[in-house]
Amino acid sequence: MALIGVLGGMGPLATVDFMEKVVRLTRADCDQAHLPMLVANLPYIPDRSLAILDGGEDPLPAMLSGIDLLNRNEVGVIAIPCNSAHHWYAQLQARSAAPILHIGEACVNAIPDLRQRVAILGTSGMIASGFYQEALASRGIMPVVPDEITQARLDASVRAAKANDVDESTVQLSAALAILIAQGVRAAVMACTEIPLAARNLSAPPVTLIDSTLELARATVAFAVARGWNAPQQVALDRI
Amino acid sequence: MALIGVLGGMGPLATVDFMEKVVRLTRADCDQAHLPMLVANLPYIPDRSLAILDGGEDPLPAMLSGIDLLNRNEVGVIAIPCNSAHHWYAQLQARSAAPILHIGEACVNAIPDLRQRVAILGTSGMIASGFYQEALASRGIMPVVPDEITQARLDASVRAAKANDVDESTVQLSAALAILIAQGVRAAVMACTEIPLAARNLSAPPVTLIDSTLELARATVAFAVARGWNAPQQVALDRI
Repeated sequence: MALIGVLGGMGPLATVDFMEKVVRLTRADCDQAHLPMLVANLPYIPDRSLAILDGGEDPLPAMLSGIDLLNRNEVGVIAIPCNSAHHWYAQLQARSAAPILHIGEACVNAIPDLRQRVAILGTSGMIASGFYQEALASRGIMPVVPDEITQARLDASVRAAKANDVDESTVQLSAALAILIAQGVRAAVMACTEIPLAARNLSAPPVTLIDSTLELARATVAFAVARGWNAPQQVALDRI
Repeated sequence: MALIGVLGGMGPLATVDFMEKVVRLTRADCDQAHLPMLVANLPYIPDRSLAILDGGEDPLPAMLSGIDLLNRNEVGVIAIPCNSAHHWYAQLQARSAAPILHIGEACVNAIPDLRQRVAILGTSGMIASGFYQEALASRGIMPVVPDEITQARLDASVRAAKANDVDESTVQLSAALAILIAQGVRAAVMACTEIPLAARNLSAPPVTLIDSTLELARATVAFAVARGWNAPQQVALDRI
């Protein structure tokens, strides 16, 4: 019985959202048919966006320590529900015996083919990192990077969700989307795992939103189910 | 930096609910001020209620293995968001170096003093175990054990939530509460961690519901915050 490893806490509510998505995406009629997970929720990992932007404290040592913890406990795959953390994807994967699913790949692969321009909703650091722009371009999609005023709203939305203030997070996201929609944007990737928390309370916006947390959860469940990690033990099946 | 250990997966959605309550109960204005957790979400642990009722497969070895995993990773306290699992509390605590918070104690301590009769909403196995009846009696409260028809609704509510069908879970809980209210019940403990999932969607019932998941989360956060486990590292504080 292999375990799904989750390097979480970046931030904690986003980790909870990811876990809930994994559970709800799993077809199960009893506990025993669900997928086992080991979740290292380590919120003390230094801020990823700050580190990318201005050389703030390096989060890599704490992330590597989390990767080591998960591997010591023999997880069979690792998901990291934080987009900015994927700035260090190569270093994390190099350290990990278990494969690490890439949230950006999962998210960009989920964009409907007909979209020509897609906005990126994430932290300033993640934008500076540039990996979403590259992933979109590799699919022939033109990335729309929010202007400075819009980006300030998005950063405020992310900060508010990390402080448990989802209402304020929604207000800031809504303001950012209004600007983007006025600029002609009709599709966007929620390329920060706090943004889907804010988006839950939006009245239906006239824009297609791709949820990076949901797409990572889908990729994780597909990986684990393909390997039978949710196979109920025979004893449990006999008793249903 | 000590970790909160969570022995979860009993069931998975209840574990997610517990984690969300811990996160939302933590005062934090950034990731780094949240509480670190290691969550072993092990849904393959055999059914606790069946084991208590008719000697179904013993869940204790799998639970002990989860306790061992958490202790190997040096958690400083353990929470188990499953009431029926506490039938084996003494054996689990005897094995664990880290103290295990008792969900039943946390829940019963939260009942307002003026309540004289309190119904127990949980699995048949948990009722058969009897520890909630004892805990209530020790506070001078008369436990109300649901009759057979009501208990069947409660068991159905729990099963539905474990199968991700929260709507059906709510329908069954609502039917059980209607019977109990007609019998004069005005307060109840949600003594199974699936019941609060069902209760989220209830229209306000004329009965006081004490949430065992929430009370365990409160006890967990109090334990961890008293020990400074959410203290932001100085570097993080400087940067806010």
